[in-house]
Amino acid sequence: MSASERSIQTPGPLSGASDAGAPRVLVLGAGFGGLWATRALAGAPVEVTLLDRHNYHTFYPLLYQIGAAEIDATEICYPVRKILRDQPNARFRMAEVEDVDLDARRVEAGGAAYGYDHLVVATGSDPHFFGVEGAERHAFPLREVEHGEALRNHVLRRFEEAEAADGAPRAGLLDFTVVGGGPTGVEYAGALAELVAGPIRKDYPVVREHPVRIRLLEAQHRLLSSLPQELGDYARQRLEAMGVEVRFEAMVERVEPDAVHLAGGEAIATETVVWTAGVRGAAAAERWGLPVGRGGRVEVEPTLQVPGRPEVQVVGDMAGFRQDGEPLPMIAPVAIQQGEHAAENVVRLARGEEACPFAYSDPGMLATIGRNHAVARTRWFTLTGFPAWVVWVLVHIAKLIGFRNRLVVMLTWAWDYFTYERFSRLILPGDDEDGGG
Amino acid sequence: MSASERSIQTPGPLSGASDAGAPRVLVLGAGFGGLWATRALAGAPVEVTLLDRHNYHTFYPLLYQIGAAEIDATEICYPVRKILRDQPNARFRMAEVEDVDLDARRVEAGGAAYGYDHLVVATGSDPHFFGVEGAERHAFPLREVEHGEALRNHVLRRFEEAEAADGAPRAGLLDFTVVGGGPTGVEYAGALAELVAGPIRKDYPVVREHPVRIRLLEAQHRLLSSLPQELGDYARQRLEAMGVEVRFEAMVERVEPDAVHLAGGEAIATETVVWTAGVRGAAAAERWGLPVGRGGRVEVEPTLQVPGRPEVQVVGDMAGFRQDGEPLPMIAPVAIQQGEHAAENVVRLARGEEACPFAYSDPGMLATIGRNHAVARTRWFTLTGFPAWVVWVLVHIAKLIGFRNRLVVMLTWAWDYFTYERFSRLILPGDDEDGGG
Repeated sequence: MSASERSIQTPGPLSGASDAGAPRVLVLGAGFGGLWATRALAGAPVEVTLLDRHNYHTFYPLLYQIGAAEIDATEICYPVRKILRDQPNARFRMAEVEDVDLDARRVEAGGAAYGYDHLVVATGSDPHFFGVEGAERHAFPLREVEHGEALRNHVLRRFEEAEAADGAPRAGLLDFTVVGGGPTGVEYAGALAELVAGPIRKDYPVVREHPVRIRLLEAQHRLLSSLPQELGDYARQRLEAMGVEVRFEAMVERVEPDAVHLAGGEAIATETVVWTAGVRGAAAAERWGLPVGRGGRVEVEPTLQVPGRPEVQVVGDMAGFRQDGEPLPMIAPVAIQQGEHAAENVVRLARGEEACPFAYSDPGMLATIGRNHAVARTRWFTLTGFPAWVVWVLVHIAKLIGFRNRLVVMLTWAWDYFTYERFSRLILPGDDEDGGG
Repeated sequence: MSASERSIQTPGPLSGASDAGAPRVLVLGAGFGGLWATRALAGAPVEVTLLDRHNYHTFYPLLYQIGAAEIDATEICYPVRKILRDQPNARFRMAEVEDVDLDARRVEAGGAAYGYDHLVVATGSDPHFFGVEGAERHAFPLREVEHGEALRNHVLRRFEEAEAADGAPRAGLLDFTVVGGGPTGVEYAGALAELVAGPIRKDYPVVREHPVRIRLLEAQHRLLSSLPQELGDYARQRLEAMGVEVRFEAMVERVEPDAVHLAGGEAIATETVVWTAGVRGAAAAERWGLPVGRGGRVEVEPTLQVPGRPEVQVVGDMAGFRQDGEPLPMIAPVAIQQGEHAAENVVRLARGEEACPFAYSDPGMLATIGRNHAVARTRWFTLTGFPAWVVWVLVHIAKLIGFRNRLVVMLTWAWDYFTYERFSRLILPGDDEDGGG
């Protein structure tokens, strides 16, 4: 009889050992939050079980590059088992969480039940369509590897269809619309502009006679609103220099397979709508009985604990943690720091101590705009252009888990850089029509 | 108005120019036969249109390695447009052939019509299940990239499920059955045995206590029947040394999701059945009115022309060409030589000359068995073991199109070789259940 089976009948005490020995820590999600929590527990006197519906960790910050046919999924995905191979107190189960019973301290996943003494919820975020009609159905979000692959296939198919149209591509076929002027929207629009200006122009003669239009629609008055104003201005200049049409105060009201409709009545013919306008905490939290607040994120104590459930902590995009009155952004550094903090709290609780409050130490923010420009905000100064891009490349390569992935990504980038060529232009199997939602 | 549109109204003369000028050559399929035919027409006074439902060429000889999680699809797929970029008389259309009208000399594909003066049919082969009940539904063929990916996902999921079963994996979960003792069956069984002995053993503790069984079922009395007897014997010894159970005279009568049933009544519990027992010419040929003979292959003249249709040639797996009374094997060297020959015939016919008969020049055959053993038959001698493996590696790397693919595959192999590690162990999106048929 395994520890998890036993636990179902007799849930362990709050912060002590299960009757088998070490306290059982259950971590939901192998993204940045869950994985870093698990790794931070290496050597601690606990038994960790990490659950994820995929058997790999995804390096989300580069997801948009899959959608722009710059890199392949395998370059930013890394097997969880490999990461945990040398951590004897951790085990991985590939399973989708079906239900969480907070009272019974039990999680149902993949047909099995997992009891816990401590739970770390790190199930991330979903695209947020704000109820815009047709968006979930027809627009492509960029939150999962599947989304990136579906978008890449869809984009490349547009050009194949334009070629097959023998000189008369239909309206909207070569019009691409990115909704949302945050980092993902800016990065994707820039990458797409470069894809079109480089390999697409070489291999698809149709685009020499028929203009490709890339529009970036932002509801507010500026790009990159989480960064200083001058960085948003710089991003806009760069994108426009690359041929991207940046439009402010453009509120999307409806998405159709071949058009977006804006507030005010304007319709834009486009067969490709990329939705980067918003994310929200993963939808399941409410069903599990967690206290969900604004943006679908779980309201947590300053310690990351759920009110009234000291054995449950929430980290990353799912956590509605506020610092200086503002919710923290849904980005990797926040998830990593919270994951590590939750691990420390588990150790404290297991020792009978109190959990400590979390504080985010902001390392800055980065966004790339095309091949060799970026914007960066550090704690002390801001950077734009090529120097910022070099920082961006170094930071991202350094953060990619696994030497071999780093090597392949570096080689791919170096190759791209010198040959101005991309290689992931394969329309590989997988559903790629009718959006990724 | 394009040449192809014009042609629909007035099909060009048999072997002369269309009224637009150069004769229009239509090539169906961007596999070895079609691609080599197209490339061989570079510089010839013809206009070539190449159609394929994918936008990439697949290096089929390494497909089994995708199924064994050794390499990724992108390492053996190469964009067709890139290959043809410097060939001004060729254009590519990504389109699935819907109909061929031999009388009107017209092909319908992807909603468009393509007229031709010369047609080269190179649409390859499909798995052949010989009417075995359940095989098409539940067994995994290995003819397309999709098949390789579906098989890889399925195999890796077996081990994830075994881990999640907490010490009691169900019968058949860790039993793998390869049907067919030809090169693909031998290569896949060997690769799977190494996957299990290496990374799976490291990352899935369950296999240390629960044996993994790999069975290779062959209906005849030996492996690799297209190679000399001693090579088949060697392959069997090697596979058995790697733990593969090789069974002869094992006729599969029925495949179920969790078992195969053999003639004679024996049932083997297995959730994974890989079908390498046969291929046949692509099924559409008959529908198009081509004279289909044994193995679903088109009966051709010694020149590769279709009887009574001198403007139509068939090459590769689709061609039922006989040499010394025997049909040629469905392998890449045959397709390549026939593709090039068909191109030469097109040029001859366009000049008003007669087509020449084809003769296959046999360069030998190779099959690999695991990490560093292979068998090779050249024109003069046979080789086994490590020397044959070195030949195999060199030949395959040399044949991969594109420097970057070669580089990545070489690096991957070198890395695998020295670290005894595999990296494509991601269960990526895509349908992976209920077989690949």
